Amino acid sequence: MQIYADNAATTKMSRAAIDAMTSYMNEVYGNPSSLHSIGQTAAEALMDARERVAAVLGAKPREIYFTSGGSEADNQAIISAATFGAKKGKKHIVSTAFEHHAVLHTLDKLRKQGFEITLLDPHECGIITAEEVAAAIRDDTALVTVMYANNEIGTIQPIAEIGAVCKERGVIFHTDAVQAVGHIKINVKEQNIDMLSLSAHKFHGPKGVGALYCRLGIPLTNIIEGGAQERGKRAGTENIPAIMGMAAAIEEASAKIDENREKLTKMRDRLIEGLSEIPHSILNGAQNPRLPGSVNMCFEGIEGESLLLLLDAKGVCASSGSACTSGSLDPSHVLLAIGRPHEVAHGSLRLTLCEDNTMEEVEYIIKAVKEVVAYLREMSPVWHDLKEGKKKYVIQ
Amino acid sequence: MQIYADNAATTKMSRAAIDAMTSYMNEVYGNPSSLHSIGQTAAEALMDARERVAAVLGAKPREIYFTSGGSEADNQAIISAATFGAKKGKKHIVSTAFEHHAVLHTLDKLRKQGFEITLLDPHECGIITAEEVAAAIRDDTALVTVMYANNEIGTIQPIAEIGAVCKERGVIFHTDAVQAVGHIKINVKEQNIDMLSLSAHKFHGPKGVGALYCRLGIPLTNIIEGGAQERGKRAGTENIPAIMGMAAAIEEASAKIDENREKLTKMRDRLIEGLSEIPHSILNGAQNPRLPGSVNMCFEGIEGESLLLLLDAKGVCASSGSACTSGSLDPSHVLLAIGRPHEVAHGSLRLTLCEDNTMEEVEYIIKAVKEVVAYLREMSPVWHDLKEGKKKYVIQ
Repeated sequence: MQIYADNAATTKMSRAAIDAMTSYMNEVYGNPSSLHSIGQTAAEALMDARERVAAVLGAKPREIYFTSGGSEADNQAIISAATFGAKKGKKHIVSTAFEHHAVLHTLDKLRKQGFEITLLDPHECGIITAEEVAAAIRDDTALVTVMYANNEIGTIQPIAEIGAVCKERGVIFHTDAVQAVGHIKINVKEQNIDMLSLSAHKFHGPKGVGALYCRLGIPLTNIIEGGAQERGKRAGTENIPAIMGMAAAIEEASAKIDENREKLTKMRDRLIEGLSEIPHSILNGAQNPRLPGSVNMCFEGIEGESLLLLLDAKGVCASSGSACTSGSLDPSHVLLAIGRPHEVAHGSLRLTLCEDNTMEEVEYIIKAVKEVVAYLREMSPVWHDLKEGKKKYVIQ
Repeated sequence: MQIYADNAATTKMSRAAIDAMTSYMNEVYGNPSSLHSIGQTAAEALMDARERVAAVLGAKPREIYFTSGGSEADNQAIISAATFGAKKGKKHIVSTAFEHHAVLHTLDKLRKQGFEITLLDPHECGIITAEEVAAAIRDDTALVTVMYANNEIGTIQPIAEIGAVCKERGVIFHTDAVQAVGHIKINVKEQNIDMLSLSAHKFHGPKGVGALYCRLGIPLTNIIEGGAQERGKRAGTENIPAIMGMAAAIEEASAKIDENREKLTKMRDRLIEGLSEIPHSILNGAQNPRLPGSVNMCFEGIEGESLLLLLDAKGVCASSGSACTSGSLDPSHVLLAIGRPHEVAHGSLRLTLCEDNTMEEVEYIIKAVKEVVAYLREMSPVWHDLKEGKKKYVIQ
């Protein structure tokens, strides 16, 4: 038995996405910038994909820029808004301490260039309120960037409320919606989102492709210079097969959004219920509002990497947090931001389901995690210190 | 009949590349940063691809960074070398006037940041000499960047000689080899290349993926910040299917390089011979050294776009120059750089063959171009002025 429960890291491509992509690899191989018929067929596909992606988000086709993925979209959005703001003397940015590193590291770069960054700390429930964002906005604020749903703990931010605050204050609002698109209904106009980043491989689309929605009127700054593709804002031959795969995947995910939410929420809540039976365990982030398939828990006295490797041996593919930081020995900045102490943050487990998972798999995961946690605790000096009262439990 | 003769714009993916890519889409969908077995299978694939791409170029695997394509690789190479140079007070860059816009526009950006750029003009034959590069190098030169083969006219630069000059002077040497890789034998160590950009879709690999070779010891500057992928130098989930497709394509192209050169050179030379029979036509760039499949000619009294559309109606997919600038009404900067006057540069035709083309197709193309040029000249006021002596022929 092999159970893939790491869908926040990446998803398996859907049949529809693979079919769309391979048919464009085989048949529509032209460069959309070429004037001949083979090129123009590719240009038509590009226009079609732009319309379809825009329609799902409630955007205009001209507001969609195709990128190589979510990280590139985040980088370009933030640098663009900062550059636009700086021209008007606005060099302050509001964000949160638990953003993805594609956002945080871009903000670090801007800090070195003289921007002032306010990072709001999320509450222990994993949420930032619109009021907190409003309080942080200043007259010189160029940008508010708050992620839609956290990639590690899955909590969902009050994006429409934050959007309304930003609109009222005349501040550009960007959201890294990499974990949200395809899983939650999004309408950029209704939610007052000015810029939004998405990545296809998070919703059963291909890797290496994403999009940046940018409201008309906000000028983009190029981060890849060269040809005049994407209305001169993103150079490089358009990746038509991947873009078509993404269009197919976003439409498919969007069509199944209610059905999947219902199915996934049941599995997620059962997973939380089952794993909460483990003593001295805690759910990271409030149970609601949370991505339908996302669970993140800490188990005291456990080291996360050992937990993953033993679960893998039992056929369960899980994660300790973000795949993008898995090489690092530091505890998750997300778990620290919601107030988990270092020693607890090290024992985290992220399980992210998709609609292909089953309740039977969920029961298997609960059993496997219980066994592995018990086994590791038996061997853990920290756990023995806790049991013998030499250390104090943090998780009650 | 439909003949694709625009392989410098993009190529049709090979069966081997499609197969490699689809099998990784179907079976190895993990995120290589994930610690579980599905992720680690993807990580092994990534390592395998890195070794294979490195082997073809004569580089070390650690010197290969995967990117979203040639434009990104060009941008990152140039910005990295400039940043490295600036730290040592070196803010001068040597390049050429007929580089791809991914290079030229990145240099424009650096010029605005205080770098001084020397752009060498190629000779009419489409070549820059190593002596000219040597003469342009100064004590404060941070970088020499000269393209391997020109994307519009196909002429090949004396890269090994330029590399030797740069090595002797202690200057970083980057080459945009997007049109050369897979078509010409390259060994970065023997040719003293410090940095090299390549793009998979130019040698029958997938779109949306490329690589930057960067010699050990030269620090890269990130242009996409975020996760620690690519040894911390390029954020974003690795596009494993495309990277595997690129590895398959580069190996295939490399294995067939001699055979293809022989076949293509014959077709290319026949094309040049046939088209040169058209009165007042001229080959752009020397016939040698030139990419085996690349022909670019000007026909006086002709407007390039009409030529392309009528050729397309006859089933011939060709280009007037770079696909990346096809939206522009300006004449090609490459043709201007080799000294073609504006009115001649407007009448350019680029035909770029691959090994799937046949000599029969070449004969068809020659016939079609002759017919279309004659037809357009009949309707051209400029041509009538030329014939009647009211204007002077530029091309004798």
